[in-house]
Amino acid sequence: MITREEQRAAQAYAAEQLEAAGVALTVAERAQIEVADFGLGDLLTTGLMLLVYVNTDRYCAKELVLYPRQSCAEHRHPPFDGTPGKEETFRVRRGTVELCVDGSLHELREGGQYTIPPDTLHWFRAGPEGAVVTEFSSTSRDDLDVFTDPAITRAPVVDA
Amino acid sequence: MITREEQRAAQAYAAEQLEAAGVALTVAERAQIEVADFGLGDLLTTGLMLLVYVNTDRYCAKELVLYPRQSCAEHRHPPFDGTPGKEETFRVRRGTVELCVDGSLHELREGGQYTIPPDTLHWFRAGPEGAVVTEFSSTSRDDLDVFTDPAITRAPVVDA
Repeated sequence: MITREEQRAAQAYAAEQLEAAGVALTVAERAQIEVADFGLGDLLTTGLMLLVYVNTDRYCAKELVLYPRQSCAEHRHPPFDGTPGKEETFRVRRGTVELCVDGSLHELREGGQYTIPPDTLHWFRAGPEGAVVTEFSSTSRDDLDVFTDPAITRAPVVDA
Repeated sequence: MITREEQRAAQAYAAEQLEAAGVALTVAERAQIEVADFGLGDLLTTGLMLLVYVNTDRYCAKELVLYPRQSCAEHRHPPFDGTPGKEETFRVRRGTVELCVDGSLHELREGGQYTIPPDTLHWFRAGPEGAVVTEFSSTSRDDLDVFTDPAITRAPVVDA
């Protein structure tokens, strides 16, 4: 669970990082920044912030923002609706990212890019300066993500 | 036809504009920036510069860079391989863009975004400061683009 205060602070951090990466946001977009802690209640360590630009039935684009050393837990994007599952390309805009795909580690710096095949286990973690990563992909269905840690729930719950 | 000098100058301009928009490029990417004049030989007026980040059989992402007042001529992305044709979302990173879709004009500023349906006529033109536009889309097949002006050829020809 995320407290309202954690959510607000994370949205403000993400907006600041995106701005520093040269991304202009509308007021509506700032409020739409999603804060995900995967239900673990330890946002600064495990989780991420997301801004979805577009998600049609053909493609999707998002910005992912991470706190320093924050990691997105291992998961895969399974097949759905007759598709092989979400295929995604990460491109680092700011900071550094350690990306692990199917057990292989990749160190990505600004301008670094990597395409993750569908239905393939992966996790990633920001370096000491945090990170901004643009994700280009096929259609996104976050609700279908399969996490390795059975304690994880993808949909964020914010304390009312 | 584009001269080598025009091509080099356009690539340098595009790299500079992308950098100013906060986009970090690798050395290989700088050299890969495509300069398109649509065969009209009047690049500063009609044409654009493109950097393709990724183009899989499911999605595509590019940066488009335009000189001040430069326009991309009216065209559409027709159906192919059993798909309805390329669907694309423009997001303005820098400068302003006038986008005309099916006869309707849209003024986009930094952070402005618009999704163009497949097989739909559109053109766009940068404002007085030029423009950087990120394009998120389904798979791109530029060679299939249908331009309204019959004098246009999409594949760039550079003077040897």
